[in-house]
Amino acid sequence: MMETVLEVSGMTCGHCKSAVEGAAKEVAGVSGAAADIEQGLATITHDESVNIADVKQSIEDQGYDVK
Amino acid sequence: MMETVLEVSGMTCGHCKSAVEGAAKEVAGVSGAAADIEQGLATITHDESVNIADVKQSIEDQGYDVK
Repeated sequence: MMETVLEVSGMTCGHCKSAVEGAAKEVAGVSGAAADIEQGLATITHDESVNIADVKQSIEDQGYDVK
Repeated sequence: MMETVLEVSGMTCGHCKSAVEGAAKEVAGVSGAAADIEQGLATITHDESVNIADVKQSIEDQGYDVK
């Protein structure tokens, strides 16, 4: 299991937090996601098989920018 | 059919807009709801039987302030 912290911009409210976390968890191999609105960060817990680019894409598909 | 415009504060994103509109439409007799994030307004279309206080309460239950 690994943890990757992504910078996510555009989260303004609790719904956004849920949307980002849900998008990350949709990717196979992601077991956890915790977004922090104030800091603009999302901590993703995942196994080694996960291509983090897929997680970024899933979050971006919800309308957020990910660094 | 009547239209009532409510001042709703706390909407920051599209999810908030959906939450406010959905909360209004949950009230029996409300046929339409259109929230404007920038202006902080929600235009409610409803029949005469609706107690607008119920609509306000439903929106407030989602975490927004309504005047």
